[in-house]
Amino acid sequence: MENISFDKVKIKKSMWYDLQKINGEKTINSVRNRFAETGRFDAFKCDWKEGMDKKPHFFWDSDVAKWIEGVAYIVTGNRNDELEKYVDDLVDLVEKNQHKNGYFNIFYTVCDPGKEWTQRKNHELYCAGHLIEAAIAYKKATKKDKLLKCMIKYADYIYKVFVEEKSASFVTCGHEEIELALVRLFYETNNKKYLDLAQFFIDMRGNNDKDFNADVSYEERAYDQSHLPVRKQFTAEGHAVRGCYLYSAMADLAKINSDKELFDACKSIFNNITEKRMYVTGGIGSSRIKEAFTIDYDLPNQYAYSESCAAISLAMFANRMLKLENNRIYSDIIEKIIYNAGISGISLSGNKFFYENPLSFGRKLNRQEEKFLETYGRKLPIRERVEVFECSCCPPNINRFFASIGDYICSQSDDTIFIHQFINSEINLDDNTILTIETDYPKNGSIKITYNGSKKISVRLPSWCENHKTSKKYTLENGYMNFGNIQDVTMDFEMKPVLVRACSKVYDDSGKVAVMYGPVVFCAEAVDNGDNLGDVSILTDGNFEIEKDDFTNFYAITADGKRLEEQTELYSKYIDNARKCKIKLIPYYAFANRGDSEMQVWLNVR
Amino acid sequence: MENISFDKVKIKKSMWYDLQKINGEKTINSVRNRFAETGRFDAFKCDWKEGMDKKPHFFWDSDVAKWIEGVAYIVTGNRNDELEKYVDDLVDLVEKNQHKNGYFNIFYTVCDPGKEWTQRKNHELYCAGHLIEAAIAYKKATKKDKLLKCMIKYADYIYKVFVEEKSASFVTCGHEEIELALVRLFYETNNKKYLDLAQFFIDMRGNNDKDFNADVSYEERAYDQSHLPVRKQFTAEGHAVRGCYLYSAMADLAKINSDKELFDACKSIFNNITEKRMYVTGGIGSSRIKEAFTIDYDLPNQYAYSESCAAISLAMFANRMLKLENNRIYSDIIEKIIYNAGISGISLSGNKFFYENPLSFGRKLNRQEEKFLETYGRKLPIRERVEVFECSCCPPNINRFFASIGDYICSQSDDTIFIHQFINSEINLDDNTILTIETDYPKNGSIKITYNGSKKISVRLPSWCENHKTSKKYTLENGYMNFGNIQDVTMDFEMKPVLVRACSKVYDDSGKVAVMYGPVVFCAEAVDNGDNLGDVSILTDGNFEIEKDDFTNFYAITADGKRLEEQTELYSKYIDNARKCKIKLIPYYAFANRGDSEMQVWLNVR
Repeated sequence: MENISFDKVKIKKSMWYDLQKINGEKTINSVRNRFAETGRFDAFKCDWKEGMDKKPHFFWDSDVAKWIEGVAYIVTGNRNDELEKYVDDLVDLVEKNQHKNGYFNIFYTVCDPGKEWTQRKNHELYCAGHLIEAAIAYKKATKKDKLLKCMIKYADYIYKVFVEEKSASFVTCGHEEIELALVRLFYETNNKKYLDLAQFFIDMRGNNDKDFNADVSYEERAYDQSHLPVRKQFTAEGHAVRGCYLYSAMADLAKINSDKELFDACKSIFNNITEKRMYVTGGIGSSRIKEAFTIDYDLPNQYAYSESCAAISLAMFANRMLKLENNRIYSDIIEKIIYNAGISGISLSGNKFFYENPLSFGRKLNRQEEKFLETYGRKLPIRERVEVFECSCCPPNINRFFASIGDYICSQSDDTIFIHQFINSEINLDDNTILTIETDYPKNGSIKITYNGSKKISVRLPSWCENHKTSKKYTLENGYMNFGNIQDVTMDFEMKPVLVRACSKVYDDSGKVAVMYGPVVFCAEAVDNGDNLGDVSILTDGNFEIEKDDFTNFYAITADGKRLEEQTELYSKYIDNARKCKIKLIPYYAFANRGDSEMQVWLNVR
Repeated sequence: MENISFDKVKIKKSMWYDLQKINGEKTINSVRNRFAETGRFDAFKCDWKEGMDKKPHFFWDSDVAKWIEGVAYIVTGNRNDELEKYVDDLVDLVEKNQHKNGYFNIFYTVCDPGKEWTQRKNHELYCAGHLIEAAIAYKKATKKDKLLKCMIKYADYIYKVFVEEKSASFVTCGHEEIELALVRLFYETNNKKYLDLAQFFIDMRGNNDKDFNADVSYEERAYDQSHLPVRKQFTAEGHAVRGCYLYSAMADLAKINSDKELFDACKSIFNNITEKRMYVTGGIGSSRIKEAFTIDYDLPNQYAYSESCAAISLAMFANRMLKLENNRIYSDIIEKIIYNAGISGISLSGNKFFYENPLSFGRKLNRQEEKFLETYGRKLPIRERVEVFECSCCPPNINRFFASIGDYICSQSDDTIFIHQFINSEINLDDNTILTIETDYPKNGSIKITYNGSKKISVRLPSWCENHKTSKKYTLENGYMNFGNIQDVTMDFEMKPVLVRACSKVYDDSGKVAVMYGPVVFCAEAVDNGDNLGDVSILTDGNFEIEKDDFTNFYAITADGKRLEEQTELYSKYIDNARKCKIKLIPYYAFANRGDSEMQVWLNVR
């Protein structure tokens, strides 16, 4: 089973067409401008000196690398001189400032020279990994291979330092990423050395005495998935993004090496995430402290962290698992992410971002209240997206994720084409055949697939779908409809608002339901429904109305509900003064686009 | 308006008779034994040396002092040679080890000699305050005044150090208590010097440059109520027990000096607590971190801290406010505390304690899960009461609070006796008249009051009471029924299970109700209702059955409810498979007495 790369996919008019358009025309430039302002590009000149402002942070290389990767995907088949000039200038600076031995890292070149490979927590290999990914993507998109050559030289040096000389102060990086990047470099170069290096980092994680002092606890080691050798890890622990980057590389290696033990660990971890530690939006990493997975069923809504990057990283992991085992458990989760937590981190205007993606906003706090809460170890997510973060991993991750969404649509084996996501598109296959997916999905569930080749066609039947029709017969396997050799097929997945409940063990969702329309999670905002959303209940036997909504370019759902009269006394006799009301719901991904407002995904029921 | 002291009150067969009996016969000895085992008594020998175990903690003096105060109240009118021998031996040690200048503190005598008055956070004046309270109580109970003489000498020395010489490194203690103790010492000795010293500490708090380095933030200063001069404080901030001890002293001074400004601050703070920052159980201090008040309406149930001592301290504050202004807003809160959060901290067996009094237990976590949660800055309350804590402020606080509950029943002015709490009792007034309160309250609301004196009678009409009858007419004033000059009156407050809701702004209680019977808050436990209490909803239009319950010696309430079928899938289509069920509820104060079990005060509604 192999991926069908985004560059084979032409996305046509659809929600994702619009998302890609704004990403390619607006977001990529907006992020560029913010990076320029904050000194992230100038940092590549490597002329910062003590006393100057805009001191390079040790993760800046990676921010810019992800942005370059985003540019690469955006200019694929649609070249753009202005953006490429920016990248080319940066690449020249990389070449100029790369150390003779191949090393490249801005922070250790200008801020802490001589300390290379001494601080495990300072993201050196993480930055290297993102630069490698950027180099591969940019070469594929433009044929310009200067950055890739630099990065190959760097990778060779890393191999020497870590495998041959073992001269670094640590064995594995505190932030995973290099592992999956090296696998990509192996695929790009066919040089097994990089695969070996990836394997080395994977095998050594949680499996050496050099990375931690003996007194570091199991739980502290779990922060970067080093509490156990990776093959002994069966639950998702620690920093969610680091975790899913690691798990992605583990899945890559499991596939390349047919490593059953590694696959079993990956599958167990994936199930642990998606069956016990994931928000209904596909968001993961519920704890702001350490940006981490916590424990099973611990999914607070108001204090949800659910970092934008974490949702993207789960899609990356799921996509790799899908190539190991074609099963809708993976592609269903990708769908959940690409219509919810994976796209809620960016404003509809395309230039403002959330780091956290909470499932509820309570009453608005004033600054003094926020400061007091911080004193007590708590911090609520910000309530309006901003143009730039100090730690700006999410915006360029959105750039590259959005631009490469085509990667998630189809895959193929020797004899079958698998269709995972229903995005209106034309896919030009390597054998000069064409597959088209015609649909307005997720606005509705009508899909027409046409194909002029000779492989069999297998299409995901989404797990949320209760009723569906197809124009041809099929056999179901792992949630996929195997249609055999066909030239076309139409299908209709019945889409309507559905109430969803959580597992009995999820404390924070008890007595509540969420509204979904197909894969899209909805939410109620005070801007539509008034404050005190906790006084509102949805009627489980009520009706729904759906109407087109210009603002979101999707639908608004109106549900029957009841609203208790506002009560200002702290405790008072309960009087059933609830009056019928209509609850207006909008797609979760569009929340917080109309100013500061209370919001809830999970609504009380009546 | 003056208090009618507990020593005038003979409590007869009732819930509080039982609570006092177990406190006097079992709890006081159990705490004594634990204190003996942990070295708290031996510490008074002041012979600890570096290298020995059981190193005295800087708050041990206060633990023992509160226990002595408890003994004093228990032996009042009911002398007990065994307990008194224990106290007398301790007092001999205090006398022996008191410094020549009057100073007494175990920690600074044996652990850190020469460092007296240098560490504001180390509770020296707090310990002094509790020893002063113990000394006054013990002298009143037994006429033995050795400890009081020692403490007067100590108080004189404190006056010298803080007021005359200003030689301490700080101006006010990091943990309030000395202030209210000095007021008591003033009442006991009639020496205005102690009142002046209390006033000094009150006036200086948040009002000097010595207590904090300039860089300590407003929020950090608020931890011990030092963010502003006390007269400028209008909200309850910081450590809840410290706060209410301070506010109690402020109320004392407001009364003694007719200090309107101080009264206004006290009233505003009291209202802020009871209208915005208090659990329905009367518990306060919602944050485990810093054991503190946080912000308005922030009342998490599962993570509630609600320290036992904090509820007691709020009763102390409320009782003082009641003497400033006879209004049921104060006595209603006392009632809430003495039937809920003020008594839930001790097991029905009388020998095990909770520090935290949460309003919900979710699913039971294993130790590994707990350790992970701690890594992410969170800690859930323990789920079974224990015999002893490292920091053991709560058990002896319960000793003294339970033994002196008579203090909260009545008060009097020149011409009126005010009846605040309905506890079956006989009150022997100073003018040789007798007031009797005959009732089974809170089992029912029937009360008969008889009085053979000439003052007027005024009786609280509880705010929870919707319907009531009285045998005589009255005029209502500030929630009190003024009956005028009467010899007897009967009244019946209708008591039945009532559903209570929280203010719309309390995020954690939205869509939920609590069940109360009179002043008693009820809860559901899994031991009666099965696990997954979040799947249970109470019918707002359902019926209630009440039956006697031998285990709690009170009632169990059975409510009509619905229970959704257990759902193990993380997210699934909501199906209304809820079946009718009966929800068994027990008094909140009796929770967690039958092993580890889920528990909820706030129940979902249907």
